Amino acid sequence: MDKVYSLASLQKFTKEVFNRMGCPADQAELATEVLLSADLRGIDSHGIARLSGYLRLWEAKRINANPVIRVVHETPSTAVVDGDGGLGLVVAPKAMEIAIAKAKNAGTGWVAVKNSNHFGIAGYHAMKALQHDMIGMAMTNASPLVAPTFAVERLLGTNPIAVAIPAGKQPAFVADFATTTAANGKLEILQRKNLDAPVGWIQKKNGEPSTNAHELKDGGALIPLGSDREHGSHKGYCLGAWVDIFSAVLSGANYGPWVPPFVSFLSPPADPVGDGIGHFFGALRVDAFRPANEFKDHMDNWIGRFRSAKTIDGEPRVLIPGDPEREMSEARTKNGIPLIDKVVEDLVGVASKYNVQFS
Amino acid sequence: MDKVYSLASLQKFTKEVFNRMGCPADQAELATEVLLSADLRGIDSHGIARLSGYLRLWEAKRINANPVIRVVHETPSTAVVDGDGGLGLVVAPKAMEIAIAKAKNAGTGWVAVKNSNHFGIAGYHAMKALQHDMIGMAMTNASPLVAPTFAVERLLGTNPIAVAIPAGKQPAFVADFATTTAANGKLEILQRKNLDAPVGWIQKKNGEPSTNAHELKDGGALIPLGSDREHGSHKGYCLGAWVDIFSAVLSGANYGPWVPPFVSFLSPPADPVGDGIGHFFGALRVDAFRPANEFKDHMDNWIGRFRSAKTIDGEPRVLIPGDPEREMSEARTKNGIPLIDKVVEDLVGVASKYNVQFS
Repeated sequence: MDKVYSLASLQKFTKEVFNRMGCPADQAELATEVLLSADLRGIDSHGIARLSGYLRLWEAKRINANPVIRVVHETPSTAVVDGDGGLGLVVAPKAMEIAIAKAKNAGTGWVAVKNSNHFGIAGYHAMKALQHDMIGMAMTNASPLVAPTFAVERLLGTNPIAVAIPAGKQPAFVADFATTTAANGKLEILQRKNLDAPVGWIQKKNGEPSTNAHELKDGGALIPLGSDREHGSHKGYCLGAWVDIFSAVLSGANYGPWVPPFVSFLSPPADPVGDGIGHFFGALRVDAFRPANEFKDHMDNWIGRFRSAKTIDGEPRVLIPGDPEREMSEARTKNGIPLIDKVVEDLVGVASKYNVQFS
Repeated sequence: MDKVYSLASLQKFTKEVFNRMGCPADQAELATEVLLSADLRGIDSHGIARLSGYLRLWEAKRINANPVIRVVHETPSTAVVDGDGGLGLVVAPKAMEIAIAKAKNAGTGWVAVKNSNHFGIAGYHAMKALQHDMIGMAMTNASPLVAPTFAVERLLGTNPIAVAIPAGKQPAFVADFATTTAANGKLEILQRKNLDAPVGWIQKKNGEPSTNAHELKDGGALIPLGSDREHGSHKGYCLGAWVDIFSAVLSGANYGPWVPPFVSFLSPPADPVGDGIGHFFGALRVDAFRPANEFKDHMDNWIGRFRSAKTIDGEPRVLIPGDPEREMSEARTKNGIPLIDKVVEDLVGVASKYNVQFS
């Protein structure tokens, strides 16, 4: 049985750990909110389970706990942000804030970020636009784990895209997905349970299909959304490449196989082509296109129509992007967040090493 | 054997047909260029094969051959364009021009279009940005043929996305793909040859998998990129939904099941929620992020690295998005464009009805 923790207790613990790393108080609080939003939304692979990973990167001096985040280039609707090697959990919200400010003046704002680190879940950042009646977008590149169609080399990350679109009476539309058939977090779940993966998720180091969830340890790779050429994996490859180029070639970060790994036991490439990892954010003011109430009425109509669509026999409902995560978030805010033994052990270790209470 | 026609002869014929429809001379020329760019790039389903379809829509008074295309709302980086029911082949280039002009001043330009029609291939429009050292984006919604994950109803079009990114010495990166497992044009090829489709492209009207390429005539549907839930079809659904909302809910066009059909024998829905079909265009000035020569050097490096990636045994090379279409375009410009018998027959019919020479 997983042990269940209240949101408040995980917040207190996480914030204290970021404090110990040397994060300023406001940044420790922000990083905690971003990180735990993943646990709340049920994306367990990207939440507190990664806390010790961030810590090890900081111990290896690959994260700057007190960064000076600054705009290094801008126009009325764009900016490039240098994250100064900070936590992506802190750099990304700052960049999204800049995108929103640009959108207020210019209609839209687009911010490319270099010299950053893993930023948690993309959806959190995109959703920051909603309260301003804006559409939010967020994407990031990541450690190379994915082989382009026809390749055996791992050249792309799972490079997620998030799009958050405000509605009126309906909850917002929030899409947030890796551009691979399955996110790495889904593979990790199978690894822990010693289960096989479906054909189409991973390939062996020679490119043959594999169902071994541990295949990546032996030089295998994740596969772009589509699974194989006949089912459109070249489109998933296009999506992952697009995210990589917007996040890193526009900003001056590392791209493709040069993206530094998240895990501290792997060294960053010796020949970097840029600074850190890269993100890309967008904010579009809805009323830069049509009156916000009109837009939201039509979004309500769109969402209502799709949600009430006739289903395949046996399927309870057609989902609107963001439905499962919102429902999970409501439930976990109320009932607490379950953590598997392996994560609890890991956090107990962190607590002991850094003399922080975990309970 | 397909008959082969020179580009010049198809241009002459197509332009003359658009003239007969009542298009002003410059618009007839533009529509011809856009339409035939599909044939040149090997996307035969979207080229001259559709000419008689446009004509029938015009005969049914569902296309305005002499539209007044105008901006109805704008900010420094955005605009909404009313296409006045014109050919998408004419409305879309005008909208992309506006996006490019906005980007010159504000760094980026984003244009949503309502009251338009089918715009040919998305890639053509995105690529217009390249000559300005800009990244171009184009998307459009389309007649509902696609069932969201778990649904049996057709609520989305094949809603393509195109992204064109300039490089230096390398040819540009040009991604252009339907957000379904397979584009409708691929299905049409199987229909003509009476071949089965792979599992994962289409479903029966009750949602069961089907390999019958004619399934859509019996209430079946195309499937979002990913093929099934286990392989990420919910991500393809997110992509198609995103294109639909940006193209139509932002602009005031029809969305989802209300998008009017391309074929003239099907009536538009009696209860429209907007005007015509919708598109969305973007232009991002590369030097709104970093100096253009720096960006292009890194794009050359990105493209070079991916193109030289080690391949799976038996696969000749890893492709860069846009490679096959560019090579096809070079070959067909030189050697001519092959048309299948059915298309030739169709065009001979058009030629005879409108008294235009076709040879």
